[in-house]
Amino acid sequence: MFKPLLLALGLSMGTGAWAALPSNEPIQPIEPAKITNPAKVELGKQLWFDPRLSRSGFISCNSCHNLSMGGSDNLPTSIGHNWQEGPINSPTVLNSSLNLAQFWDGRAADLKEQAGGPIANPMEMAFTHDLALGVLDSIPQYRASFKKVYGSDTISIDNVTDAIAAFEETLVTPNSRFDLWLKGDKKALNKTELAGYQLFKDVGCTACHNGSAVGGNSFQKMGLVEPYATTNPAEGVAGLTGNDADRMKFKVPTLRNVELTYPYFHDGAYWKLEEAVDVMARLQLGRKLETKQIEQITAFLKTLTGEQPSFTMPTLPPSTNKTPLPQPFNK
Amino acid sequence: MFKPLLLALGLSMGTGAWAALPSNEPIQPIEPAKITNPAKVELGKQLWFDPRLSRSGFISCNSCHNLSMGGSDNLPTSIGHNWQEGPINSPTVLNSSLNLAQFWDGRAADLKEQAGGPIANPMEMAFTHDLALGVLDSIPQYRASFKKVYGSDTISIDNVTDAIAAFEETLVTPNSRFDLWLKGDKKALNKTELAGYQLFKDVGCTACHNGSAVGGNSFQKMGLVEPYATTNPAEGVAGLTGNDADRMKFKVPTLRNVELTYPYFHDGAYWKLEEAVDVMARLQLGRKLETKQIEQITAFLKTLTGEQPSFTMPTLPPSTNKTPLPQPFNK
Repeated sequence: MFKPLLLALGLSMGTGAWAALPSNEPIQPIEPAKITNPAKVELGKQLWFDPRLSRSGFISCNSCHNLSMGGSDNLPTSIGHNWQEGPINSPTVLNSSLNLAQFWDGRAADLKEQAGGPIANPMEMAFTHDLALGVLDSIPQYRASFKKVYGSDTISIDNVTDAIAAFEETLVTPNSRFDLWLKGDKKALNKTELAGYQLFKDVGCTACHNGSAVGGNSFQKMGLVEPYATTNPAEGVAGLTGNDADRMKFKVPTLRNVELTYPYFHDGAYWKLEEAVDVMARLQLGRKLETKQIEQITAFLKTLTGEQPSFTMPTLPPSTNKTPLPQPFNK
Repeated sequence: MFKPLLLALGLSMGTGAWAALPSNEPIQPIEPAKITNPAKVELGKQLWFDPRLSRSGFISCNSCHNLSMGGSDNLPTSIGHNWQEGPINSPTVLNSSLNLAQFWDGRAADLKEQAGGPIANPMEMAFTHDLALGVLDSIPQYRASFKKVYGSDTISIDNVTDAIAAFEETLVTPNSRFDLWLKGDKKALNKTELAGYQLFKDVGCTACHNGSAVGGNSFQKMGLVEPYATTNPAEGVAGLTGNDADRMKFKVPTLRNVELTYPYFHDGAYWKLEEAVDVMARLQLGRKLETKQIEQITAFLKTLTGEQPSFTMPTLPPSTNKTPLPQPFNK
């Protein structure tokens, strides 16, 4: 097994990078997306931006996972159909393909399963899968795109969510300054940032925030040492299992691009990264950090901002005389 | 004067195109935008997509003038702050730089004056200019961009709307099939489309829908021959002048990209282009068109769909600890 591994690494990174491989670090670099089916990704991008997947014709995936704003909406909880106040903070879609499961409570196994959720959620896009399919089916260009990608004359919700997931898989953010440092560019971080990273490890943050997404790969109790005070009624994994031990257990969020994904936590109650660091250290690790330590860790966290997705805004195919009309207002 | 004009045309179109110049047609081609200040356009693009110019942090210019959807929202009237139902159909932003004035009633002289309206309109973005400036001023990247473009340390609403207008001026849609035909490509239109164009002229549509935007250059009474039946209370220019003769007088909308900008008229009451053609012919021209004639004119109108704006989705600079928080819900 050793030789092929070396060969594979040699092919993807060049032998020069070998010496700098961050094998002892708890965080690994994010690699750029490899697009194998560009037609599927393009179709997924159109669907991502298409508000006709909502009852109102106003809300698209991008409304709450805005790719101009770190893949989030920068609101405590989202605005849904009829301006309903959402129950939980919109997690970033950036690097979400690296999560072990989707949603804060992990109730969807993968991006494809997740993508169907908001469309049919009465508090979000407030549509149904059948109605969404009816809209898409009435638009010849969509029919042609699905036919091209999936070879079928019938558009299924399975294919809709598959295409959206394929687009989402491209939304990774490589080449953050921290990744450049991990890959051997020792000048990529300054002293404060390096001190922050050291503290981040020493204090114990990497127990949960590790891997290439710096999180996203485990469920943990929010308020391990000290309970988290919130008015948000979300119960976490217990909402699925009914198991009391799972109360307040949430998927550990990624810290990639955390500078862009305020406000923080499942209730979006904290807007300042410094405050979020302080709360985490106290509640999860039983540590009261000094101001300077918080500043150092915050400086480190900001080095996790990677290259944001860069793509051409899609042009959506127009509706036809057969397209069911949007229902923006309750009439 | 003759020689410089010929020279200028020679430079921009090549001498070969001269013979085909559509000098006798009531509609002129749209020319591509010439960007003279790319930094200003880029700043304007960021502002265009930035929902932090709204009270909720959720509504941006692009929410109601969606550049993926013909520069409109494809709703009868728009959804504003707190899901308020807007009073009038969102006109397309595409080619709006060619309009003689902005808004349906022309109450803004130009794009710059228009851009300030929705930000402060309590039914739309529901913010104030001062609060919007406070948000922008709290974000160092915005301050740097404004300083670069306008040379001042203070961000003014004048510069905000100037940058948005500069971006909007790039949103022209050249090279529609009709423009290719105008420029000499006689195969660009088929027989039905050509018959539709001939009818469009013969019936009298070009009395109002002329020029490069095929409209946008005059105010006319909606319901000239026969009154327009609507429940929409908009009074048109009379709302500004108080003059009874201006009742139901609206700016003639552009027909460029009309295939994409449904539903039609100031109340957005008609979704089918064929119906809009029928209504216009009856109410404005006293003509009852036959089904075949309507189909021909509709086919012609669809040749006015030009190249849609193609640009990279912007990345917005993140808020800071000093940025005033959005107020999505009335708390």
